[in-house]
Amino acid sequence: MKFNVASDLLFRVDEPTTLLLNLEAARYGRQVVLKEQLILPDGARVDEFEAPQERNRITRITLAPGEAPIRYRAEIELSPILGDPAAIGEIPIDRLPLHVTGYLLQSRYCQSDRLERFALEEFGDFEPGWTRVQAIANWICEHIAYRSGSSSAQTTAVDTLVEREGVCRDFAHLGIAFCRALRIPARFVSSYAWQLDPPDFHAVFEAYLGGRWWIFDATRKSAVDGLVRIGTGRDAADAAFTTVFGSAELLDMTVSIAADGENAEPTTMPVSFAD
Amino acid sequence: MKFNVASDLLFRVDEPTTLLLNLEAARYGRQVVLKEQLILPDGARVDEFEAPQERNRITRITLAPGEAPIRYRAEIELSPILGDPAAIGEIPIDRLPLHVTGYLLQSRYCQSDRLERFALEEFGDFEPGWTRVQAIANWICEHIAYRSGSSSAQTTAVDTLVEREGVCRDFAHLGIAFCRALRIPARFVSSYAWQLDPPDFHAVFEAYLGGRWWIFDATRKSAVDGLVRIGTGRDAADAAFTTVFGSAELLDMTVSIAADGENAEPTTMPVSFAD
Amino acid sequence: MKFNVASDLLFRVDEPTTLLLNLEAARYGRQVVLKEQLILPDGARVDEFEAPQERNRITRITLAPGEAPIRYRAEIELSPILGDPAAIGEIPIDRLPLHVTGYLLQSRYCQSDRLERFALEEFGDFEPGWTRVQAIANWICEHIAYRSGSSSAQTTAVDTLVEREGVCRDFAHLGIAFCRALRIPARFVSSYAWQLDPPDFHAVFEAYLGGRWWIFDATRKSAVDGLVRIGTGRDAADAAFTTVFGSAELLDMTVSIAADGENAEPTTMPVSFAD
Amino acid sequence: MKFNVASDLLFRVDEPTTLLLNLEAARYGRQVVLKEQLILPDGARVDEFEAPQERNRITRITLAPGEAPIRYRAEIELSPILGDPAAIGEIPIDRLPLHVTGYLLQSRYCQSDRLERFALEEFGDFEPGWTRVQAIANWICEHIAYRSGSSSAQTTAVDTLVEREGVCRDFAHLGIAFCRALRIPARFVSSYAWQLDPPDFHAVFEAYLGGRWWIFDATRKSAVDGLVRIGTGRDAADAAFTTVFGSAELLDMTVSIAADGENAEPTTMPVSFAD
Repeated sequence: MKFNVASDLLFRVDEPTTLLLNLEAARYGRQVVLKEQLILPDGARVDEFEAPQERNRITRITLAPGEAPIRYRAEIELSPILGDPAAIGEIPIDRLPLHVTGYLLQSRYCQSDRLERFALEEFGDFEPGWTRVQAIANWICEHIAYRSGSSSAQTTAVDTLVEREGVCRDFAHLGIAFCRALRIPARFVSSYAWQLDPPDFHAVFEAYLGGRWWIFDATRKSAVDGLVRIGTGRDAADAAFTTVFGSAELLDMTVSIAADGENAEPTTMPVSFAD
Repeated sequence: MKFNVASDLLFRVDEPTTLLLNLEAARYGRQVVLKEQLILPDGARVDEFEAPQERNRITRITLAPGEAPIRYRAEIELSPILGDPAAIGEIPIDRLPLHVTGYLLQSRYCQSDRLERFALEEFGDFEPGWTRVQAIANWICEHIAYRSGSSSAQTTAVDTLVEREGVCRDFAHLGIAFCRALRIPARFVSSYAWQLDPPDFHAVFEAYLGGRWWIFDATRKSAVDGLVRIGTGRDAADAAFTTVFGSAELLDMTVSIAADGENAEPTTMPVSFAD
Repeated sequence: MKFNVASDLLFRVDEPTTLLLNLEAARYGRQVVLKEQLILPDGARVDEFEAPQERNRITRITLAPGEAPIRYRAEIELSPILGDPAAIGEIPIDRLPLHVTGYLLQSRYCQSDRLERFALEEFGDFEPGWTRVQAIANWICEHIAYRSGSSSAQTTAVDTLVEREGVCRDFAHLGIAFCRALRIPARFVSSYAWQLDPPDFHAVFEAYLGGRWWIFDATRKSAVDGLVRIGTGRDAADAAFTTVFGSAELLDMTVSIAADGENAEPTTMPVSFAD
Repeated sequence: MKFNVASDLLFRVDEPTTLLLNLEAARYGRQVVLKEQLILPDGARVDEFEAPQERNRITRITLAPGEAPIRYRAEIELSPILGDPAAIGEIPIDRLPLHVTGYLLQSRYCQSDRLERFALEEFGDFEPGWTRVQAIANWICEHIAYRSGSSSAQTTAVDTLVEREGVCRDFAHLGIAFCRALRIPARFVSSYAWQLDPPDFHAVFEAYLGGRWWIFDATRKSAVDGLVRIGTGRDAADAAFTTVFGSAELLDMTVSIAADGENAEPTTMPVSFAD
């Protein structure tokens, strides 16, 4: 299915300031960037980098004082794999591909090392595999209140678990932490998210099951087969849409995504874009 | 019912060291100290203090270098009030005696301010009063593993909730934090605990319901009508059996309590010693 | 010296809501309330309590839905003791009055138990007594940036020490934590603060030295001989100017204090109001 | 210079247990593994992985119940670059190679996002470059007490900064966190460490300066030109010498390293092994 995505950011800086932007859609086999355009302020010094493993596309830009509009437009073709919940199992630790074991580790916002008993108690009895991770996502959706402004850049999965409120990034962090605590590799994905209302950048998580990465949205706010991936990493630290070195005020931001096709309907089946 | 309690502590200090001891049974109307003896090392400088409100009895002693045995023996008469669970309600905040409102506040180990949503979600639907606090105690007993050595002097209620293991002090802290989050005054009680096996100092909590303080042991390890109170406070910081200023090694400690009467049987009814 | 203090708070509540107010000046020998008036919304149910030990004056009020103005006016006579810095020493732990030892303990916002090495390293070499506590206050003033909005109701002394910014309450918490880590009893004081600009409620701390409580303002923003005490306690949890049970929006607040006398000049000497 | 390294671990497991080992010396241009032998228990299922970027060598082994000895022996040739302190500068953020910017991010044990003010205040005035990072290492050595057993697997850089004690891993975490807070990429290195006494696995950190990674040992316990690198990563989560999935008791462990040459002398100059 094709999607048109767009983001418009307007920054103001008072002195020359460097930003790392991660706004561009990632290039995977199942996520093809058909067309795209990143429009940066005139005269800005710019360079780009595509991370070899997760393929995050980083654009570094140094802004001169003043207002700096940044625009991204892209047309994306998504070809998700849809799975059968019952057939997507967990891979025991002794057979996991070693290159995914890094996603079992605790990270800045996902202290899975502290949640082993909790995760085992709440989720230990579910059918291993997609069913269990979906149970995790359901638990989060039912127990954590989604409240704009209820968390900060320092909020961790443990905080969210205790305080029982957060935003999409916190929901994703908690899902990741529970998965890792159960020895399921899990990672953070930032995205343009189809059907998210109101439109915004969105965070979801992926769990490595049955040899692939499957997408979960614990907020239940997006249609995950229309998820246009931007950044992938251990947690939000790895996939910020913008990292500012200095001080830049974000004056305005709009984000959008639209399915190219009138009758597009989201799936309810398991969705995967990456192996 | 009468109880004989005893504690024997053996310290070694290398240089003159001051300790605050809180080993002596508190004196309340329903807890009468019939006889007692506190035997301190010869020649130690000693003074005593009984806190006016919670009646904790503090003995300050400065030990000379060497080994220092400390022994306490007492005979205690307990006259608990036994209540009817259904009749013990919560007092709304606008009618609580103002002198107990301090026990609604967050404290070092009981960050009730962070647990409001959690407490409301888990315990909001129970019948207010003894039934609800008992539900809290039950939840803790069922979800937190009792494991010696699993926590430290810095472990808080939030840590215990996340890591799902602890000792009696952690169980009490979590019970207190949940109560306060629900606007039920709650406090920490250190004690000689009847039927605790193996014998040791023990921590439980009290909740203020229906105009009295009712005892709860979330570990379910003691018989609370045989609870000989030592210290009372907001949390363990207030009721340490010994606070050492300097360094004193505790070489040995034994604690015991016995009911004076062969056929003594613990009650299963709500128990209160204090108003 | 005489002072006129005033505070005006305007709340809006949507449903009946109970508040504990602590706005009234405390009554101590050296702080005499000459005249005062607390004007509460008509028809509100009200009761009052003066804590026996710290003498905090708590007014409980249950507000009906709507806007609720609360006004306090008072005329206060302060008779501080001024001390000689060199003569105000520390009292060793074995001679401290036992009733102040509770102020050596860690509390919700003052985790002194974690700061012993830090405090000893930074402040261990100063002359014990007022000089050392003043060194603590100076260190805080020099190392912590005062920034409105930089902290929250959950910010602790440890957070402030790490993040190096805060407001008056955070400055006080850090001072208290350092003192206790050095075995100097210390406590939190909320106040109307002379010369504070812009006027607001203010937080300072007291340290127990030479047999009295001496006032320190690590923000250096107020004149401490014109400090009209409201609440006293272990930390901000004990001395909030308002504790809301339910949800009340504070629409507006103004606070003022003025010295009654044209040429009043603040002192630079140690100041104490309490023993 | 050549070094002989060895490690001997003896585990006992009660049920089949999978371990990820990271004991083998990494293979870099300036660290050549001349000979090596990893001896694993007979019959164990084993597979290996060398991470493409940091080149950590992971061996996965599933142990059968019983005692399991693991032995590693290697002969390593190190060819460090020695630098001139004054010539090793910092690279501004707008010219840093983009592939190292990931090492600017906060991580599980290195919350650099919380330490910006602290780092700027303490280290902002030093000459940027090697001199400044050495000042960080010196500060840590002077302010943090090295004490075995003083920290746990959950201890973070913030904890170490507050509590002022730790072991090599904590020293490294704090160094990394300070560097990142100053926008200097920094990473964790586990190692066989020449002249460390008593011998053990050791943790140090690297900072990216002047286009290379320079080694710093804030404990001052090892000779960094004799540092045989094992694992590299954001923090200790990435470079544990053993990660156990299940429960394995480490019964015994010995580690050694010896310079192959009688008169080997450590350098005092800046040392780098990696670009």
